[in-house]
Amino acid sequence: MILITGASSGLGAALASLYSDDNEKLILTGRNQQRLEQISTPLNPQVTTHASDLCDPQSVAELFDTIEEAPDTVIHCAGSGYFGKIEDQDPAAIKQLLDNNVTSTILFLRELIQRYRDHKVNVVVVMSTAAQAGKAGESTYCAAKWAVRGLIESLRLELKGYPMKIIAVYPGGMATRFWKTSGKDLNTSSFMTATEAASMLKQALVGTEHGYISDITINRG
Amino acid sequence: MILITGASSGLGAALASLYSDDNEKLILTGRNQQRLEQISTPLNPQVTTHASDLCDPQSVAELFDTIEEAPDTVIHCAGSGYFGKIEDQDPAAIKQLLDNNVTSTILFLRELIQRYRDHKVNVVVVMSTAAQAGKAGESTYCAAKWAVRGLIESLRLELKGYPMKIIAVYPGGMATRFWKTSGKDLNTSSFMTATEAASMLKQALVGTEHGYISDITINRG
Amino acid sequence: MILITGASSGLGAALASLYSDDNEKLILTGRNQQRLEQISTPLNPQVTTHASDLCDPQSVAELFDTIEEAPDTVIHCAGSGYFGKIEDQDPAAIKQLLDNNVTSTILFLRELIQRYRDHKVNVVVVMSTAAQAGKAGESTYCAAKWAVRGLIESLRLELKGYPMKIIAVYPGGMATRFWKTSGKDLNTSSFMTATEAASMLKQALVGTEHGYISDITINRG
Amino acid sequence: MILITGASSGLGAALASLYSDDNEKLILTGRNQQRLEQISTPLNPQVTTHASDLCDPQSVAELFDTIEEAPDTVIHCAGSGYFGKIEDQDPAAIKQLLDNNVTSTILFLRELIQRYRDHKVNVVVVMSTAAQAGKAGESTYCAAKWAVRGLIESLRLELKGYPMKIIAVYPGGMATRFWKTSGKDLNTSSFMTATEAASMLKQALVGTEHGYISDITINRG
Repeated sequence: MILITGASSGLGAALASLYSDDNEKLILTGRNQQRLEQISTPLNPQVTTHASDLCDPQSVAELFDTIEEAPDTVIHCAGSGYFGKIEDQDPAAIKQLLDNNVTSTILFLRELIQRYRDHKVNVVVVMSTAAQAGKAGESTYCAAKWAVRGLIESLRLELKGYPMKIIAVYPGGMATRFWKTSGKDLNTSSFMTATEAASMLKQALVGTEHGYISDITINRG
Repeated sequence: MILITGASSGLGAALASLYSDDNEKLILTGRNQQRLEQISTPLNPQVTTHASDLCDPQSVAELFDTIEEAPDTVIHCAGSGYFGKIEDQDPAAIKQLLDNNVTSTILFLRELIQRYRDHKVNVVVVMSTAAQAGKAGESTYCAAKWAVRGLIESLRLELKGYPMKIIAVYPGGMATRFWKTSGKDLNTSSFMTATEAASMLKQALVGTEHGYISDITINRG
Repeated sequence: MILITGASSGLGAALASLYSDDNEKLILTGRNQQRLEQISTPLNPQVTTHASDLCDPQSVAELFDTIEEAPDTVIHCAGSGYFGKIEDQDPAAIKQLLDNNVTSTILFLRELIQRYRDHKVNVVVVMSTAAQAGKAGESTYCAAKWAVRGLIESLRLELKGYPMKIIAVYPGGMATRFWKTSGKDLNTSSFMTATEAASMLKQALVGTEHGYISDITINRG
Repeated sequence: MILITGASSGLGAALASLYSDDNEKLILTGRNQQRLEQISTPLNPQVTTHASDLCDPQSVAELFDTIEEAPDTVIHCAGSGYFGKIEDQDPAAIKQLLDNNVTSTILFLRELIQRYRDHKVNVVVVMSTAAQAGKAGESTYCAAKWAVRGLIESLRLELKGYPMKIIAVYPGGMATRFWKTSGKDLNTSSFMTATEAASMLKQALVGTEHGYISDITINRG
């Protein structure tokens, strides 16, 4: 079974569609139950949805209470964008950005590790190339994404000796709804689509008996 | 004039004391006015204090409203620690940690840049060696410190061409009150004191006409 | 057409075998013509070999003189290992290590870029996880691999606006002949085989219209 | 006693002059005995010189044979520059660059560690900001400097538990003879002088009982 967060749009939704085509059993989560249902309606009957707010520890716990067995793979796509020069950014939007990307990831991985660190779970954490370098006009977004990277580099050390593994994914800009809601005005016509990124990621996640791809950067071009 | 945040204890208080000995004009800030006064009482009469909550944008604005001229140097020491394996960490304490280290730094630097980016201000941002590598038992603390690093690497790019400069400081473990409140049980007898770190940092911050030390890691040993 | 360096053993040989199964046209190079022929004999008839010494600029030029068209993909696997504490390492072996890994890569990429930077060539540079962190007992090997990483991060900037792209690959330890000749005594039974790494890498190299995986770390486990 | 390599020009010569003013006992080395004597003639009588070629293990051994006691501090400044787009670089000059920066540093640190790892020696390794990021037009120089960084990050791990410590220094562009011989045409009038960089570095190297500055980046501005 594969659990996908942020599944109601973008890369999460595209991955859901691709894995559904393979007849995988999927659990999709996101904040909006209606959007999740729109996404899952055309998918295979083994796909179920469960709305959750990953910033709320109680909601995270309830999400995992609905899961009966250890997932084989967890793909954490949830997150949001917010851009602009620091002096033009709004404090409330900054706090929202940190909640949506950092608090949510911490609380989600905390619950996942509490419950399943003794199981062979591949935990795929989707960040951004903004986690790898500073970028002008993206200071708080970089802060949020660097935070997630610092978190998972630490968790990899805590998970040494456990069967659970963390796979870090850094996609560059995709042509998704993300940009429309981020306040950044971009021509995304040469960007890869979410489906393109999803298909590359899906291929890269196929491991072998003794090895796996642990870190993946996906770029335009 | 030098503005120091997190001045009521640890490295911030030690720096206040050293710069006061040089008869520098200082403004000290921290959350607790009483503690700030305890720190400033023995210092030179040019030292003033102003309590502020850097997580509150209104409080940050008020702090800067009390400042009549561009500071020559700003030393941002404010921050707190919280440690333990991820599965043992408490959601409320995690949120507090992110607020104290990430939200505060973003809101503080945002206000500072809005007001003074056209002035020759040295902005010293004190992080930790936890901003440079993942550490087991420190996942959320690393997340918070990596966030600040991602922020300032981005802000350096936004400040290109402006006279304001950011200096990044990464101290290793010091023997301060920090550890007592962090939940980590450590024998800190071989750690450097805050005064030792402050004296090294103060020396390293003395620039020349055409150059300055932009990144400083301070370690035990 | 795919050009593979270091093709006479390890990952290079395994990739040659996998791509041959797909009926790809391949050119294999390595220092030893006899070993290259042993590798290529069982492969498809479109596979040709050309021995070359990548540390010799004349030999590199001659290799490219035999190639009639721009390759679609170049996979640079050539390299060697040498390990031990710094104080136990031999100066001649250190120089050999630098030649085999650094000089060779520089001269090879220099010739490739001179000739083909205006073509859509995917240049896959295989390094090691030793290019990403320091390792005790591997100081000179890390030096060599970090050198290659610094090189390609610079070349990516020089290639901005050109159709040629560099893909960075960082494999962890594989069970190959590499270890037998490196002076490091290891039980490699739980290591991934070269064929495992090759199959994961081959999948990850399949790009899409607007995107590609630019950086890949492959680990055991 | 302080041992300085690359002391016949640039930062090495400037450091020699500053430490001589403090009446420190110094040993200066470089390839050219005549230039070393020109540098040392105006310095205090405790300054001695010994020409050596750090790319030759025999010459490195002879240098250390002249030293009667463990140095307190070693400052390794030796190195050279070579720039240009990769396709315009000359193979012989590339090999020279790697020898002057990488082979020399490996052989020098190898001998130093063999002899003195059990002594409290501060080993200061001067690299460049080119060791921290890729740069267009500096690909082989970055390769050389990244190599040194990979080396010392590994050696720090090998030296754990020993009193010897490595201090990493990353200076940005200085106005020195270095540029005249590097083939890069630059207006260096706003660059810091070697004396400015030396004075900042000297201050930053003053440690305390339990701590020291382990990593220093010096920039223009």
